[in-house]
Amino acid sequence: MLIVPEREIAGLISASDCFTAVEQVFASMAKKSAYNFPVIREAIGHADALYGFKSGFDRESLALGLKSGGFWPNNMAKGLTNHQSTVFLFDADTGKCRAVVGGNLLTALRTAAASAVSIKYLARPDARVLGMVGAGHQSTFQLRAALDQRPFEKVVGWNLHPDALDRLAKVAAERDAPFEAVDLDTLGGQADVVITITSSFAPILKATQIRPGTHLACMGTDTKGKQEVEAELFAAVTAFTDEIAQSVTIGEAQHAVAKGLISADDIVEIGAVINGDHPGRTSAEEITLFDGTGVGLQDLAVASATVDLAVRKGVTVDVDL
Amino acid sequence: MLIVPEREIAGLISASDCFTAVEQVFASMAKKSAYNFPVIREAIGHADALYGFKSGFDRESLALGLKSGGFWPNNMAKGLTNHQSTVFLFDADTGKCRAVVGGNLLTALRTAAASAVSIKYLARPDARVLGMVGAGHQSTFQLRAALDQRPFEKVVGWNLHPDALDRLAKVAAERDAPFEAVDLDTLGGQADVVITITSSFAPILKATQIRPGTHLACMGTDTKGKQEVEAELFAAVTAFTDEIAQSVTIGEAQHAVAKGLISADDIVEIGAVINGDHPGRTSAEEITLFDGTGVGLQDLAVASATVDLAVRKGVTVDVDL
Repeated sequence: MLIVPEREIAGLISASDCFTAVEQVFASMAKKSAYNFPVIREAIGHADALYGFKSGFDRESLALGLKSGGFWPNNMAKGLTNHQSTVFLFDADTGKCRAVVGGNLLTALRTAAASAVSIKYLARPDARVLGMVGAGHQSTFQLRAALDQRPFEKVVGWNLHPDALDRLAKVAAERDAPFEAVDLDTLGGQADVVITITSSFAPILKATQIRPGTHLACMGTDTKGKQEVEAELFAAVTAFTDEIAQSVTIGEAQHAVAKGLISADDIVEIGAVINGDHPGRTSAEEITLFDGTGVGLQDLAVASATVDLAVRKGVTVDVDL
Repeated sequence: MLIVPEREIAGLISASDCFTAVEQVFASMAKKSAYNFPVIREAIGHADALYGFKSGFDRESLALGLKSGGFWPNNMAKGLTNHQSTVFLFDADTGKCRAVVGGNLLTALRTAAASAVSIKYLARPDARVLGMVGAGHQSTFQLRAALDQRPFEKVVGWNLHPDALDRLAKVAAERDAPFEAVDLDTLGGQADVVITITSSFAPILKATQIRPGTHLACMGTDTKGKQEVEAELFAAVTAFTDEIAQSVTIGEAQHAVAKGLISADDIVEIGAVINGDHPGRTSAEEITLFDGTGVGLQDLAVASATVDLAVRKGVTVDVDL
């Protein structure tokens, strides 16, 4: 059994490697070669923790396993990350545990890769202004991955607490992109691509704030009740997602579905666009939206890629189990 | 993160340690201090494998985690066990992965402990003849654990292929108990305690074959469709189980429930007997039946005990994750 510790991940896998892994597995999902197993998510009644697993199998890459993930809100006070993730990979030919991989950084990278994949396939080729809604820890990953997909000339950002926007300004500066803190009307009026990455439980973006031709990547909603954009905005776009079953239940689509504005049939798996089975964006005026809910297969894809790189670099710890 | 390899398990934990751990967690379940999360079980469409997880949390012992288990029917030809299990334990206070424990032997031991616990609490104190139905690999574990619970003077056994009964005869001989291969009528006519441990999909034991005062431990049925005793026999007993939800869906009770002979309300959690909240057997004539379906909490309980023993003996491998 190979161990790839959390501390090694940053030196092993790049945002670009994660992009490739996530793009492949989204394609595999749309071909029905890969599927996610039911998600386990439990409030365990101890330490205020939420704990669970996302798991799946990709018959193309043979990635099999799970990510155990949890949210321990009192960890910070102990000097630990509140989110604790570990990925366990199994040999699809024998069922033996193949690898245990630190999953904290990988979770951030695979989430960023998902919005980046959506930008590659759905944003206008001439997109030049990127709008960021949300400036928490995860937003920097989304921003970096997005900047690789189009030659963005400017980044505009909004956050409930504007002082956190410094975080985004720093990342934009790394890439020599000017950054401006703006209100939501200005953000929607300027941005060609908007990424929302918040923990909001009420809509932030209104339909009237989004221009024709915009691509929206809504990455924050992964639980019943969370919401980043108005249901009316969701109903007005061409909608894509990682997994339709999650999109309509715990993703951004849940609200438009609950209001009867759309149904699951109105949402396209992004993998179908990657595979060439769906055209994706069909005009410069269309508003596209990617509802990124986060699936176990993304975790398995980036963890598998990490293990392969770790083996090549000889940095795994090999323990006989 | 501590690793306890499969090869160390036999030297660390005894059947008696497993008995104590399983007894405690059954009690905790009945007090609603411990609960199992939904089971994931998937035919993955590769290597004919069945793969999944059983997971849960015990607020009393703070055991948190999962057993990944799988059945890879082509493993034998590769010199590997067809059943492949690994237990992953997490720190309930922080969510960090605490330990990875080889789960193959532990699965056998925790399954044997469950029927032994049922014998302790439900068999007549004067039980002297033990009947074994099924003589596969697992049956030897059930037999050994059962022989610790009563001073059995004789073991009678039946198996679809009688030549496999040698396996049981050997274990009985270890404990100086005479062993006899018998037909099912004789088995039911002599045995005070009967353990069924088969992979049968049709009833083996009939109601007419079982005497008043018998305790039955049905340990083989863990899947929809499997069956070891007639539904009419199940309907005639005082029924106990590890987890009612599993008993009525994938356990031995499924058939009596499907026929409308009993409902979930007719089945008692064995933990309630351990806790003293249910009297268990109330007469020497009553037939008691324990429907052992196998729950994730059993796996976590025996794996936690193993890790504690391994730490004490200094045989863990400690890897920084």
